[in-house]
Amino acid sequence: MDLRLADLRAAQARINPFVLRTPLLSSRILNRMFGHDFLFKAENLQRVGAFKARGAMNALLWAKETHSLPSRVCAVSSGNHAQAVAWAASLLGIPSKIFMPANVSQIKAHATRAYGAQVVLTPDRQTAESAALEEQSQGAFFIPPYDHDQVICGQGTACVEAMETEPSFDAVVAPIGGGGLIAGTVIAAKELSSASVIGAEPDKANDAALSFRSGRICSLGGTPPTICDGVRTLRVSERTFHYIQQLEDIVEVSDEEIIISTQWLTHLLKATIEPTAALSFVGAVKWGLRQPTRKRVLVLLTGGNLDHSCRSQVYSEAWLEKGLDAFVERLRGSALS
Amino acid sequence: MDLRLADLRAAQARINPFVLRTPLLSSRILNRMFGHDFLFKAENLQRVGAFKARGAMNALLWAKETHSLPSRVCAVSSGNHAQAVAWAASLLGIPSKIFMPANVSQIKAHATRAYGAQVVLTPDRQTAESAALEEQSQGAFFIPPYDHDQVICGQGTACVEAMETEPSFDAVVAPIGGGGLIAGTVIAAKELSSASVIGAEPDKANDAALSFRSGRICSLGGTPPTICDGVRTLRVSERTFHYIQQLEDIVEVSDEEIIISTQWLTHLLKATIEPTAALSFVGAVKWGLRQPTRKRVLVLLTGGNLDHSCRSQVYSEAWLEKGLDAFVERLRGSALS
Repeated sequence: MDLRLADLRAAQARINPFVLRTPLLSSRILNRMFGHDFLFKAENLQRVGAFKARGAMNALLWAKETHSLPSRVCAVSSGNHAQAVAWAASLLGIPSKIFMPANVSQIKAHATRAYGAQVVLTPDRQTAESAALEEQSQGAFFIPPYDHDQVICGQGTACVEAMETEPSFDAVVAPIGGGGLIAGTVIAAKELSSASVIGAEPDKANDAALSFRSGRICSLGGTPPTICDGVRTLRVSERTFHYIQQLEDIVEVSDEEIIISTQWLTHLLKATIEPTAALSFVGAVKWGLRQPTRKRVLVLLTGGNLDHSCRSQVYSEAWLEKGLDAFVERLRGSALS
Repeated sequence: MDLRLADLRAAQARINPFVLRTPLLSSRILNRMFGHDFLFKAENLQRVGAFKARGAMNALLWAKETHSLPSRVCAVSSGNHAQAVAWAASLLGIPSKIFMPANVSQIKAHATRAYGAQVVLTPDRQTAESAALEEQSQGAFFIPPYDHDQVICGQGTACVEAMETEPSFDAVVAPIGGGGLIAGTVIAAKELSSASVIGAEPDKANDAALSFRSGRICSLGGTPPTICDGVRTLRVSERTFHYIQQLEDIVEVSDEEIIISTQWLTHLLKATIEPTAALSFVGAVKWGLRQPTRKRVLVLLTGGNLDHSCRSQVYSEAWLEKGLDAFVERLRGSALS
C-alpha cells in the first residue's frame, strides 16, 4: 500500500524530540550566477551529519510503538547509515552491532564506535550481510538502509520540514542510492506541493536512471567507482522503485562536476558537505538549464561526512582559484552539450 | 572616551537589516571529550563569510548618519576585510577600490571583485597602503580593518547577539589580530555578563600577548609565518590596546594545534572554518583546562574563507583518521606541559 503524507507526519512526530530542524541555506552569488533560486536543506548539520538519522530513529521508534522496544539492533553499512543506527540505538539505550567491511575508513569506524555501537569488521560486504542476517535470526532488530517503509518515512521528513518552512517550490532534487531519500521526497512533495521531483545520479552509477527509463530494475555489475560514497548501491529495491517511477526525471552528472560543486558549495555556503550532497546541486543546475523561466528549487544536502581520502580527491585540483565563471561555464557547458 | 554597550547597540540597529543573525553551534561529542560546554558563534556563516561584514557595514552607515553617505570608499586588505568593504559599499550603491598586494590568492581577488569592488593589485603591502592614503586624500572614505571606533563597535555586535541568545557564559574567547574583534568583545561582555574575556594568539604571532604582559605595545619584526592569515598583523593599535589590557588573559597556541582543531571542528560542526576560527577554540580549551569546574564558553568563529593552499596545509596530515582521543590528548598534553 502506498505510503502517504500522513505516514510521514507520524514519523515526524516520533523523531522530532531527537533530530534537528536543519536550516535552509542559500547563496545570492549562486542564485545570480545560475539564474534560479536554490534553497539548500542542510542535512549535513543533522545529528550524525546526515539525513540518515531520521530514518534510523523512525524505524526504531516505530518498532517500539507497534511491537516493543527491540532488545538489540543490528545493521550493515560502511557509511552514514552505520552512524545513524548507532546513534539512534544509543539514545534509546539499546545495544547495537554494526557490521562493516574491513576496508572502511578509520574515521567512520571510530565515529560509529563513538556513537556507542559495537563495530564488527568483516573481510567483505557479503560476509557483513550474512553476519547481520545471522544476528537478526537470533533476535536482533535489523534496520536496512532504505528497503523499509519506516526508513523511507523518516527520510521523507526532511522534505516535509523544508516545505513547511518555505512554500511554493517549483522543484525538489535529491540523489538516488538505494532510493530511500527520493522515495520519501516523492511522497512529501506530491501532497505538499506541485513541485517537480528530480533524482540525481552519477553517470558512473546510473542504475536508477536506466531502471527509470526502461521501466524495470537494472543492476550494476560491481561497486561503481564514483566519488559519491552515498550512492554506490548496485540497485534500488522494488519498494523504492515504485516511488522512483513517479519522478519527473533523473539527471545524470559526472564526477568532475560533482567535485567542482563540492568545492564551490563548501566555499559559498560555508558548510561541510560530502560529494553526494553536491550531486543534488548539479542535478538541480542541469534541470534548471532546461527551464525557460526562473525557478525556485529545493536542493537536499544529504550530509557532511568526508574522510581524508575523499577530501584529498575533492581538492586535488584548485577549482576555486579558477573563479566563479569557470565553475558556471563548466556546469552550463556540459549540460548543453 | 571609552566605547560602551550603548555604542554597540547603535551599531546593531544600523547593521541589522544587512547582516545575518548567525547561529550558535555546538557539538555534544566535543563537550563530552573536553568537559566544558562550548557554544560557537558561527560568523563563518555571516555575509562574506566573516564577522568583518559587521564592522565595515557599521562604519559606512555611521558615516552616512553623521556626515553623509561617502561618494566612494577605499581599503587595504588581502583578507576578509577586503570582501567586507566591497560588499558593504556595493549594497549601499557606493563604488569601492580595494588595494591588495599582488601575491594575494586568486580566490580572494575574485571574491572581492564579485562583491563589486575595483581591485588594484600593488607590488607589496607598503605600496598598497600608500596608494590608499593617496585615494583618501582625494576624497575617498577609508575604512581601516580595526583602528576605528565604528569598526570596533560593528565587530562587537557578534558577542552582543550571542549573549542575547544564550545568557550566562563563564567565558568568551576571540582571536587577536589588530584587535578590533577582541576590543568589541570586551565592551560587550563587560556590560552584558560576568564572563572572563580571553584572547587567543598563535605563538608565532604573539605580539598582543607580549604587549599585554609588558604593558606596552610590542611589534613583530616581519609578517609572522602562522597559518592564521586573519591575525598576521604586526601590532595592535593604541585604540585596541586600551581594551586588550582589560582581558583576563591571552592564551598562546601552536599552529599544529590550530590545524588539528580546524580539521576536527570542520568535521564535528559540519562548518567550513578558517584556521583563525579554530584558534579561538584552542584558546578556549587551554583556558578550560585550568578551570576546576565545568564552564560554559562562547567561542567566536571568525570566518570560513580558505584558499586552496591554506586548505592543503590544513589537510596535509590525516588527523581525523587518528581518532578523537588523539585530538584530545594532543590539546590536553600541550596545555599541561
